[in-house]
Amino acid sequence: MIPPGLLPEGLRDRLPPQAEAAAALVRSLTASFASHGYEHVQPPMVEYEESLGSRLGGAARRELLRFTDPVSQHTLALRSDITGQVGRIAVTRLAAAHRPLRLSYAGLVLRVRGSQLSPERESVQVGAELIGSDAPAAAREIIALAVEALRQTGLADLSLDITIPTLVADLAQSGWPLGKASLAEVQSLLDGKDSGGLAALGAGAFEPLIAAAGPAAAALARLFALALPAHVRARLESIAALIADLQGVTVTLDPTERHGFEYQTWIGFSLFGAGILGEVGRGGAYAITTPDDTAEPAIGFSLYVDGLVDAGLGVTDPRRILLPLGTPPETGADLRAKGWSTIAAFNDNDKPADFRCSHILDGVEPRLI
Amino acid sequence: MIPPGLLPEGLRDRLPPQAEAAAALVRSLTASFASHGYEHVQPPMVEYEESLGSRLGGAARRELLRFTDPVSQHTLALRSDITGQVGRIAVTRLAAAHRPLRLSYAGLVLRVRGSQLSPERESVQVGAELIGSDAPAAAREIIALAVEALRQTGLADLSLDITIPTLVADLAQSGWPLGKASLAEVQSLLDGKDSGGLAALGAGAFEPLIAAAGPAAAALARLFALALPAHVRARLESIAALIADLQGVTVTLDPTERHGFEYQTWIGFSLFGAGILGEVGRGGAYAITTPDDTAEPAIGFSLYVDGLVDAGLGVTDPRRILLPLGTPPETGADLRAKGWSTIAAFNDNDKPADFRCSHILDGVEPRLI
Repeated sequence: MIPPGLLPEGLRDRLPPQAEAAAALVRSLTASFASHGYEHVQPPMVEYEESLGSRLGGAARRELLRFTDPVSQHTLALRSDITGQVGRIAVTRLAAAHRPLRLSYAGLVLRVRGSQLSPERESVQVGAELIGSDAPAAAREIIALAVEALRQTGLADLSLDITIPTLVADLAQSGWPLGKASLAEVQSLLDGKDSGGLAALGAGAFEPLIAAAGPAAAALARLFALALPAHVRARLESIAALIADLQGVTVTLDPTERHGFEYQTWIGFSLFGAGILGEVGRGGAYAITTPDDTAEPAIGFSLYVDGLVDAGLGVTDPRRILLPLGTPPETGADLRAKGWSTIAAFNDNDKPADFRCSHILDGVEPRLI
Repeated sequence: MIPPGLLPEGLRDRLPPQAEAAAALVRSLTASFASHGYEHVQPPMVEYEESLGSRLGGAARRELLRFTDPVSQHTLALRSDITGQVGRIAVTRLAAAHRPLRLSYAGLVLRVRGSQLSPERESVQVGAELIGSDAPAAAREIIALAVEALRQTGLADLSLDITIPTLVADLAQSGWPLGKASLAEVQSLLDGKDSGGLAALGAGAFEPLIAAAGPAAAALARLFALALPAHVRARLESIAALIADLQGVTVTLDPTERHGFEYQTWIGFSLFGAGILGEVGRGGAYAITTPDDTAEPAIGFSLYVDGLVDAGLGVTDPRRILLPLGTPPETGADLRAKGWSTIAAFNDNDKPADFRCSHILDGVEPRLI
């Protein structure tokens, strides 16, 4: 027997005012996306597990909540991410739409298990995806949009961590010597900031990448000093240009960081803000597999609304006024048209404070309590 | 192998402009609720099946999509309705909140199977619940709110069908003779409009209820002419009063209709509108079972956003303008501040029509294409 009111582990009710804050944040973020031409799509909560899973990595796929559909007997799953669904829409139902295609989304996602940092199994994901290009102009637009949308919510002290997940592979392919090490070994040594290990295996050429992590201007200066192939240099220049656009954002660069960016190509990024422990969002360039097995370039980001709510953002402060018994309906309508939330008393002894009202209607005028 | 882009039966992607319309309708409806003091709550998509199911009827409970939680090994289910979740919140986490408590919600619901009229298995449900009272003033507020919120979306030709699901039982309990019939038999004969059957069993007293169905004024007049117990007469008077409030709404009354209102008490209602085949909403008075097994009165309604979208409501028509390559960022910001959706060209040969733009920026002025 489940006690009334008990919810499964990792699931929760959002109550006022947090539920209203979450809804207000979704409205604000999607309005920012719409103002830049991003059009809303709403994929379903549930899809074939095979279809959802094929657009996720191995670890993420194991986090899908799955069940057998009593109608089709197929295995279905609850989405743990919306980006992959938007990609599917872009290359199937919207395959004929002109590129670049700008889409936005907002909705709940669920996963089997929360993490230690974030025990919730259900969260609100909001995002924007630019499909058909991952060129520098696309990266510049997407990163500026993420920053602008977060700023509009009131989030302060924004910081942006940029990574180049394919950098090491690109350098190896262009002839930087791996010595006796495999590409995976070099990446692993870089993850561990293991200069000695790199040198010992004859992959010392990659060692300067370790020092080229930190505040973006200095990190980029260190990278530009290296012997880089032209296409890598061009990407770094486009990163330098998009950073120059961002006023008042602390930007760091970790050129070899790959963890959590397994699906990103030439650029990945995380966003952080004041009062929020974890990421408030992440994104990057990626490739969508099309039905004829080609790849379409895309770039986008997801924002995590729950962190913004927990930081106290999105709180609306409606002016609530109690209407005494017998208030004419048109008086209430007038007040609502002026932005009041009107609460009708059902009893003569109802008190404004009982209903979190700051005011009561006194004759025809609001009176502060 | 599932073909890319195929969704399980009864599930669909909402694309622009319908997805944007659905989001705009949710915003409009919840803003109407908020203006009357209804505060937003957001229960989770998934709960213990036992908990969700116990607040649903038998048939509805069988429509829950269920699965075993890999974490707890309990059976969980996807919600098929949000009203019951809001009731649970009201009598558990918000048990100490002052009454009446006004709550609103919006979200996706899922069910095992669609119906012939509505094959979708996922739909958007939005609603408002007034908890702690089902008095005439509460019914009047709730019905007026449903009508006002739907009108704000642009829905025309609203009609309201009222029913009194407990009427026959109340009359039997107050002494109207059932003859040789059981209460259930009388209700079944009334469902079949079977005057002869009622007379044959000695329950002819109930026969005038059959004729008291139709346009509300005439139906109420017929009912008032009967020998009614005082509490039933008082309820009918409160229904007459709330109808009198509603300007321009076609109201019908079917006093014995119970189907789909198994959980309603003294009043239930359905809402219909121009261009929509099925109901756009339904609601009524009901009782919430509290953790100590008492009953708290409540009244509320749910609205079905998908029908409104299908009727063409909620369509926003953003003014989209193409910004040629090299447009300064501050020019774009100025246009967005004036309500434009700006779409940045990535190429010199991008055409406004490719991006559904009505205008292109020509120097510093928008120019119609």
